[in-house]
Amino acid sequence: MTMQITTPAPHAPAIPGRGRLRPLGQDDVRITGGFWGERQEINGRNTLAHIGGRLESEGWLPNFDLAAAGTLPAGRRGREFSDSETYKYLEALAWEIGRTDDPDLDKTFRAVVARVAAAQDPDGYLNTNFGRPGQEPRWSNLEWGHELYCLGHLFQAAVARERTRPGSDDGLLAVARAAADLVCAEFGADGRPAICGHAEVEVGLAELSRVTGDERYLEQARLFIERHGQGTLRDIEWGREYYQDDVSVRDAEVLRGHAVRANYLAAGSVDVAVESRDEDLLNALRRQWSRTVARRTYITGGQGSHHQDEAFGFDWELPPDRAYSETCAGVGSIMFSWRMLLNDGDPRYADLIERTLYNVVATSPSADGRAFFYANTLHQREPGSPVDPSATSPRAGSALRAPWFDVSCCPPNVARTLASLDAYVATVDDTGVQLHQYVPASIETTLPDGRAVAFDVETEYPRDGRVRVVARSEGEWTLGLRVPSWASDATLRIDPVTGTGEERRVSPGQVEVSRAFAVGDAVVLDLPMHPRFTRPDARIDAIRSAVAVERGPEVLALESVDFGTDVSDAVVDVSTAPVDRDGRVWVRVARRPATGTEWPYREGSAEPVRDTVDVPLVAYHEWGERGPSTMRVWIPSAE
Amino acid sequence: MTMQITTPAPHAPAIPGRGRLRPLGQDDVRITGGFWGERQEINGRNTLAHIGGRLESEGWLPNFDLAAAGTLPAGRRGREFSDSETYKYLEALAWEIGRTDDPDLDKTFRAVVARVAAAQDPDGYLNTNFGRPGQEPRWSNLEWGHELYCLGHLFQAAVARERTRPGSDDGLLAVARAAADLVCAEFGADGRPAICGHAEVEVGLAELSRVTGDERYLEQARLFIERHGQGTLRDIEWGREYYQDDVSVRDAEVLRGHAVRANYLAAGSVDVAVESRDEDLLNALRRQWSRTVARRTYITGGQGSHHQDEAFGFDWELPPDRAYSETCAGVGSIMFSWRMLLNDGDPRYADLIERTLYNVVATSPSADGRAFFYANTLHQREPGSPVDPSATSPRAGSALRAPWFDVSCCPPNVARTLASLDAYVATVDDTGVQLHQYVPASIETTLPDGRAVAFDVETEYPRDGRVRVVARSEGEWTLGLRVPSWASDATLRIDPVTGTGEERRVSPGQVEVSRAFAVGDAVVLDLPMHPRFTRPDARIDAIRSAVAVERGPEVLALESVDFGTDVSDAVVDVSTAPVDRDGRVWVRVARRPATGTEWPYREGSAEPVRDTVDVPLVAYHEWGERGPSTMRVWIPSAE
Repeated sequence: MTMQITTPAPHAPAIPGRGRLRPLGQDDVRITGGFWGERQEINGRNTLAHIGGRLESEGWLPNFDLAAAGTLPAGRRGREFSDSETYKYLEALAWEIGRTDDPDLDKTFRAVVARVAAAQDPDGYLNTNFGRPGQEPRWSNLEWGHELYCLGHLFQAAVARERTRPGSDDGLLAVARAAADLVCAEFGADGRPAICGHAEVEVGLAELSRVTGDERYLEQARLFIERHGQGTLRDIEWGREYYQDDVSVRDAEVLRGHAVRANYLAAGSVDVAVESRDEDLLNALRRQWSRTVARRTYITGGQGSHHQDEAFGFDWELPPDRAYSETCAGVGSIMFSWRMLLNDGDPRYADLIERTLYNVVATSPSADGRAFFYANTLHQREPGSPVDPSATSPRAGSALRAPWFDVSCCPPNVARTLASLDAYVATVDDTGVQLHQYVPASIETTLPDGRAVAFDVETEYPRDGRVRVVARSEGEWTLGLRVPSWASDATLRIDPVTGTGEERRVSPGQVEVSRAFAVGDAVVLDLPMHPRFTRPDARIDAIRSAVAVERGPEVLALESVDFGTDVSDAVVDVSTAPVDRDGRVWVRVARRPATGTEWPYREGSAEPVRDTVDVPLVAYHEWGERGPSTMRVWIPSAE
Repeated sequence: MTMQITTPAPHAPAIPGRGRLRPLGQDDVRITGGFWGERQEINGRNTLAHIGGRLESEGWLPNFDLAAAGTLPAGRRGREFSDSETYKYLEALAWEIGRTDDPDLDKTFRAVVARVAAAQDPDGYLNTNFGRPGQEPRWSNLEWGHELYCLGHLFQAAVARERTRPGSDDGLLAVARAAADLVCAEFGADGRPAICGHAEVEVGLAELSRVTGDERYLEQARLFIERHGQGTLRDIEWGREYYQDDVSVRDAEVLRGHAVRANYLAAGSVDVAVESRDEDLLNALRRQWSRTVARRTYITGGQGSHHQDEAFGFDWELPPDRAYSETCAGVGSIMFSWRMLLNDGDPRYADLIERTLYNVVATSPSADGRAFFYANTLHQREPGSPVDPSATSPRAGSALRAPWFDVSCCPPNVARTLASLDAYVATVDDTGVQLHQYVPASIETTLPDGRAVAFDVETEYPRDGRVRVVARSEGEWTLGLRVPSWASDATLRIDPVTGTGEERRVSPGQVEVSRAFAVGDAVVLDLPMHPRFTRPDARIDAIRSAVAVERGPEVLALESVDFGTDVSDAVVDVSTAPVDRDGRVWVRVARRPATGTEWPYREGSAEPVRDTVDVPLVAYHEWGERGPSTMRVWIPSAE
C-alpha cells in the first residue's frame, strides 16, 4: 500500500513523494515539554548561540567574508570542510525559527545567509577553500576536498528554510539552486563521472529536487549514488570502502567504511530509490539496514568502532572501550532509518531511532548545551581532565564533553536534529495518525481524505512508562502506537471521556486503535519501565559474559564517581535483578580483588568474587556530567 | 652483584658498561640451524635482497644520490622518514656480514655506505627531506620530521659495523660521528632544549658512545631522555603521550602512547641509566616494564592496541581483533627487555623476549621472507584478498602479508633482528654461561676470569621440548638455564659422558648447574610441550570467557581454512584438553548456530551449543600462509 502525496509539504526534513507513511512537520506537531522539550529549549537558548559564536571566533564564518572581499586564501582558517558547519548552523536556525518564530534568530539567519551569498562565485560555485589563485583548483581533490559534501549541507539548509518559510526573500534557496545547477553541469551524465569522498550531496540534492520540483537535482543525486562502487576515488590506507566506493549501493550487503559517510549515502539512496520507484535499490538498503543493526551497532544505537578511519568494523566488532560511535553517525543513522520508516512503515526503524536519540544524540551535549561528545565511548577506562570552556579540542575521543573541536561537525548536527525533532514524532496514512516517539505534544493535522484530527500526548516518558493520547477533536480515525521491542509486557487501555476502559496486553510492534473519537477520549499505553539486564550475542567478543542494564529506551552506565573505584574492577551479580530506588537504578556489584603485576594469561580458572555492594547507575546520556570518571555500560557478570 | 666489563666488546647490539650479565656476541655464539637458523638463512638469502631491491625501486636509496647531486627536492620519493629504512638495512647487512662473512654482502654494504656518505652535508647534517631550498628547514618540525630518529638508526648501523668489523675502512662510523657531533652541538645543554617526536636517537647515541668511548654522545642521550615529559612537542589529537612527552621517563608508571616510540625510548633509557648508575631511573623502567607486561601486552608479546595512533591502549585494553601489535613494537620490546635482562638478570625478561620472538618477530615475515605483516592482529574477522607480490601496500593492518608498505619500517626491523639473533641467546657472568633462548648452537667463550668454555646446544625446540647442552671443553663453571614461566613440570638431568643421570623437577625461573664439566658431559632440560589452554585475566574485557591454546613458547590459532567456516562461530569445549596428533594440535570445537538478523542485545540467556568436531590449530606465526582465511587466537569457551 503506497500513498501518493499531493497535499502541501509539511515543515519536515524529509518528504518523500510516496511511501506508506507521510511525515508530520513542525506545523502539525509541537513538542510541549518533557525530556526532549527541555533539550530543545537548551538547544535554542544556549547551543545555537554557542555555535554561532564559535563559527565567528574560529574564523569559519569570516572565511565567507574573505571570499567576498576577494582576499582569500590569506587569512582562511579551519579545515577544508569548515564551510559545512555554517550550513548546518543555518539549517538548525531554520528549524528553530520554524519551531519558535523567534525574530532575533531570523535576523541572525538572514545576516549569515547574506555573508554566504556574497561569497558565491558568479557561476554558482561556493567554497572558501578551493578555486582561487593560491588554493587548489575546484574539484581537484574529490577524495578529501569535501566541496560537494559542503554543498549538500547548503542544500539541506535551503530546504529547511523553504519548508518552514516558503518563498522567503532571504535568498538562500537561490544560492543553493545556483550551486546545484553548477553541480549538475559539472557532474551530470555528460560531465565528470565522479563522486565526492564524503557522501551528503546526494541527500541534499534529492531534497532540493523535492522542494523545488526540479527533476535534474534528483537525477544528479541518482547519478552520484550509482557511481559509488566504481572506484573513481583512489585507494587509500583504509581501502575504498572508507568512502563507499568499493561496492555499489545496490550490491552492498551491509554499511561499511566511514560511518557518517555510509549513513548519509544510505539516506540519500532511500530518497532516490523512493522517488524513482527503484525496489531493487530499496531491497538492498533494507538488507544493509538489517545486517548493520544486527551486527554492527552498539546497544546505544551508536555505530562505528574504528577511531582511525571513523568507520564501522567488521561484523561483531563492537568493542565498548573503543566505541567511536560518532555523534554524527547517530544523526546519519536516524536520517536513514526515518526514511525507511516512511517508506516501509516498519516500527523497527522507529525503535532504532528512539534508541539512538536517547543514547547518542542526547548523550553528546552537556546539560547546558555548550559542550559535546564527538565520539561516544561505552567504556571509559581512565578519567579525563577538566575541560577549559574556552578551548578547542584536537581530540574526537574524550572522557569529558568539549566546547568545540578542530573538526566540529557534531555540535551543529545535534543542533539541527534537536531543532527539527517535532517532525520525527508522528506520521499519517489513509487511516489515521501513527505515533513513533513518545513526547508530551500537541498534534493537529488533516488526513489525506480531509478528516481533521487533533490530540494531545501526555507523558513523562521515559521517567514514567505511561503515554496518554487525548482526543481534542471528534471523528473516526485510527491511532497507531509503537510498542518498543523491549516492551514485552506493555498494556493498552481506552478511556472514553466518561470513564475507564479495559486494560489489554499488547506485544512489541505496531498497535492500532480504530475508533470514533469523542473529545476527551484517551488511549493509554503503559510501557514497562522496570530496569532490566540485557545480554549480548556471544559473537560480540568484546562484551562476552557481560550484561548491560537498560530501563525503557535508556541504556544505563556505571560510573566510578558512584562506584568509588575504577569500574574495571566491577563484577555484577546477575542473580539480583536491578531495582529502581530513590529515582535511580541500583545493581549489586562486587569488586574483583586487585591484581595486575604478573603476566595476565595463565592456566587454571578465574579467581572468586565476593563482597557485593549495591551501586546506583546513571543514564548513559548523563554520564561525565559530574566531573572526571571512569564509566562502563557493559559490566562483567559473575554467573 | 654488578660486574665491571673490561674485555673486548662482543659482536652484539647492546653492550652495557656494567650489569649482572654480559652479552655473548656473534663471535661467541653461532646458531647452527633449527627454527631460528632457518629463518636466518631465509633472511640472508631472500629478505635482505628483497629490501635492497625495494629501497632502490621505491626511490628511497636513490634519494641519497639526489642529495649528493644537489638536485633535491626534485624527484625525492618516500615518506619523511624513509632514510631510516636504508640505515636499518645497513644495520641488518652489518650483522649478516658479521654472521656469515659474505663478501658480496660486504660489497653491497660498502656501496650503500658510499651513497649515504656522499649525501652528508659538510657540517655533518644528513637527511634527504629537510634543509634544502624548497624543503622545510632543518629541525623545523620536530614533532613529525623524524630527523633525529633517522640519525638514531644511522648510529645503530655504524655501531653494528664497528662491533663486527672494528676499524673497517668503509667510512660509516665517520659519517655517524659527524652527524652525532652536529646533534650534540645543536641539541646539547646550551642548544635547543628539544626532543625528536620519535624516540630512537637516544639508544643510537648511547650505543655510539659505547663503541667510540665518546662520553658526549651518552650525555646527549641523557639530555634527550630527561627532556621527555616537558611538553616541548606540541599537543596533538592523541595527546603528548603519543611521543612520551606527557610525563618524564622517571615519573611514568607504564609505557604509553606510540608503542614503537615508547619501547625505543625505554631501551635508550636503560642504556643511559646503566651507564650513569641511575638506580632511580632503572626502578622507573622496571616498574613500567612490569605494569606494561601485566596489563598492556597481548599473549603474543605484541604491544599496541590502537590503529589510529599505533599506540598502547589503557590498562586491560587488549582487543584481539584490533590488535595493532606492530612488528616494530615487538622489536622495540625485545630491545627494552634485553637491556633489562643484562642489567638485572631476571629471567622474566627473557620469557617475554622468547614470547615476542616466536609470536611477533617470527609472525611478520612469510615463509619465503619476501612479504610481511606490519600489524599482527590476533583475530582476523574477514579473509583478505590475494596480494600482488609487486605491489606496495598503503595499509598497515592486513589479513595477508604484503611485500612492501608505504611506511615500511617493519621489514628491515625484522631483518636486523634476525641477523643479530645469535647475540640474544646467551650471556656470561663471573660464574659461567646463561642460556636464555633455546636454539641449536655452538657456543665458545671466555669467562671474565679467563676460563674457556665451549659447548653445543642440541635441540629441536620448539617442536620438541628437549634441550641438550653438551660440553666441548673441560672445566668447572656454572650453566644457567631459563625454565620458561609456562613450563610448570620441566625436568633436568645431568648425563656425564659415561652414562645417564637422575632426572629432577625444576621450577620456572633460572636453574643453575655448577659442575666440573668433562668433554661430552650433557645437561638435559626437558620442557613440557603438551598443548595447554590459557585463560586471561577477567579484566581484559575483549577476551573474557575465551581461551587460547599454547604449546611451549608458541601461541596457536584457529584458521577458517581448517575450521571450514567463519571462526566467529567457534566455541571451544574446554572439558576436552587439546591434544598433539599427526604433528598438529587439535581442539574440540562446536559451531554456534547461525543467527545475526535481529537486534543482538536481549534479555534472557545464551543459546545452547552442540555438535562438536575436532579441528587442528596452526602456530600463530604460520597463520595466513595458506591463502585468505579468518583466524582467531582466543576462542570463546563453553563452560
